[in-house]
Amino acid sequence: MTKELVFGHKNPDTDAIAAAIALAYLEKQDGYDTEAVALGPVNPETKFVLDYFGVKVPRIVENAEPETDKVMLVDHNEPQQSINDIANLTVTHVVDHHRINGFNTAKPLYFRAAPYGCCSTVITQMYSEEGIDIPKEIAGLMMSAIISDTLLLKSPTTTDVDRDALQALADIAGVDNIEDYGVKMLKAGTNVDAKSDKELIDSDAKSFTLGGKNVRIDQINVVDLEDINKRLADIKTAMVEEAKAENYDLFLVLVTNVLTSNSEMIVVGEPKAIVETAFANKLNDDDVMSLPGVVSRKKQVVPPLTEQLEAEK
Amino acid sequence: MTKELVFGHKNPDTDAIAAAIALAYLEKQDGYDTEAVALGPVNPETKFVLDYFGVKVPRIVENAEPETDKVMLVDHNEPQQSINDIANLTVTHVVDHHRINGFNTAKPLYFRAAPYGCCSTVITQMYSEEGIDIPKEIAGLMMSAIISDTLLLKSPTTTDVDRDALQALADIAGVDNIEDYGVKMLKAGTNVDAKSDKELIDSDAKSFTLGGKNVRIDQINVVDLEDINKRLADIKTAMVEEAKAENYDLFLVLVTNVLTSNSEMIVVGEPKAIVETAFANKLNDDDVMSLPGVVSRKKQVVPPLTEQLEAEK
Repeated sequence: MTKELVFGHKNPDTDAIAAAIALAYLEKQDGYDTEAVALGPVNPETKFVLDYFGVKVPRIVENAEPETDKVMLVDHNEPQQSINDIANLTVTHVVDHHRINGFNTAKPLYFRAAPYGCCSTVITQMYSEEGIDIPKEIAGLMMSAIISDTLLLKSPTTTDVDRDALQALADIAGVDNIEDYGVKMLKAGTNVDAKSDKELIDSDAKSFTLGGKNVRIDQINVVDLEDINKRLADIKTAMVEEAKAENYDLFLVLVTNVLTSNSEMIVVGEPKAIVETAFANKLNDDDVMSLPGVVSRKKQVVPPLTEQLEAEK
Repeated sequence: MTKELVFGHKNPDTDAIAAAIALAYLEKQDGYDTEAVALGPVNPETKFVLDYFGVKVPRIVENAEPETDKVMLVDHNEPQQSINDIANLTVTHVVDHHRINGFNTAKPLYFRAAPYGCCSTVITQMYSEEGIDIPKEIAGLMMSAIISDTLLLKSPTTTDVDRDALQALADIAGVDNIEDYGVKMLKAGTNVDAKSDKELIDSDAKSFTLGGKNVRIDQINVVDLEDINKRLADIKTAMVEEAKAENYDLFLVLVTNVLTSNSEMIVVGEPKAIVETAFANKLNDDDVMSLPGVVSRKKQVVPPLTEQLEAEK
């Protein structure tokens, strides 16, 4: 049996890490020789979660080929969000909750996606279908992933399946007060003062090809938007430099207040006019757009941008 | 609730029809307003199956937009094998057992694929997971689809999951002798004398983009290869004409003896040399290659061709 690496997207968030660990365990029960790994260092929120449930931080890998040519992807399918040598590998399993884009295979594989708020919700369903007990600490990780992805069930991506899974996982993990644990966890991930400008704009950033444009979208969670606004000029300078170095046409940073569920979006690059059209909203003189009620990059940012950029292509 | 059309690929085979009917019924139990339709007339094998189990032939549609903008795909995902106006529609569900290629969405959806011999096997698993009873006649259709796709479990695409599903479905459908029913069904689909050359090369044909080439691959099931060889010249003429009219670079017709599990492949177009390399085999003077033991287009024809055409791109 060839060893298979299991991982989430680059710039891993709590779901990318939790889903990889949960799927690796599940597939091991089915006889696969799996190891959950990460495509980068874990963020402070995920570190809090792993410490809380006593789980080791996964090993970081940059390429799979030195070890294996078989991999399982969780929480992503787009090649540019995946491991560097993805083009040379055979993907045997995918579990995801995002749009499907640019994912092509030469052979049939296991592919499981659902439009839920969190990839760990899909995996929770798979455990249930296969009748496999979820270990307590893995339930804790998946529970945390759902809280993280849905911002305590407040994101519009949240479904009833997520709600049910969260409660079931909390019961297994022995977490009595989900709200209390969740706020602690989200706050652990929002200490932006400790991060450099470069770290802030990179830590949860994903790349997309939308209407032929290279678009980079980062999301920063805060408990007070002022934490970002007070250093806006420096952050924009860092964004301009990185956009130039990495050839991004557009660089968007969504700053989300996890307590109020409102966002501001910083926009660098062009076409800015299309961004304004996409959100039916105007940028202020600092290139910042106010987006009340917007918390989901996947559901509230990528789709309108895709539509507008495709239309103008 | 918007009505949703559920369909398999163009040139529907028994699995495309059975899987559409089975998924439409399953999703109806989940509250969706579904209708199973077909992207073309059913073939003689499928007609035999529908008659045997007393199920009406599905309505044929060419475009969805006059009725709805939401669809569910079974037994395919590649856009060129789908409904004509697929680019304008929202795909909400896919259930498949093929490679994933060229399938892109703007939003998350339900996508379920597994490397089994038959799409109906995946759907059988979904019924079981959701605890929904399979109606007798739908079990009969799905059982027939597994027999058809795996040539009575003899194709190398066959998995243990297919074997188990076939037996379970036969029990529900009340078919005691699977082998006996299967041979009758396969023979019903192999009356090639009744078909024109044009019908023969079209009836189970699928289009692929492999290494930038437009490749058309048809499969004809027979109980005696001589039924095709005696009219080879005419069939090749029809292939050349159609390749020219439809801009196919390569047109392959796989002629499979369903009783012996051997095939011959007729090759029209270029690059023929790459086809020979792909199968480590030579074409004879009639442009026919003998392929002993080859019965699966998906597992034994598309992958080696893809690899070779991509390598030579």
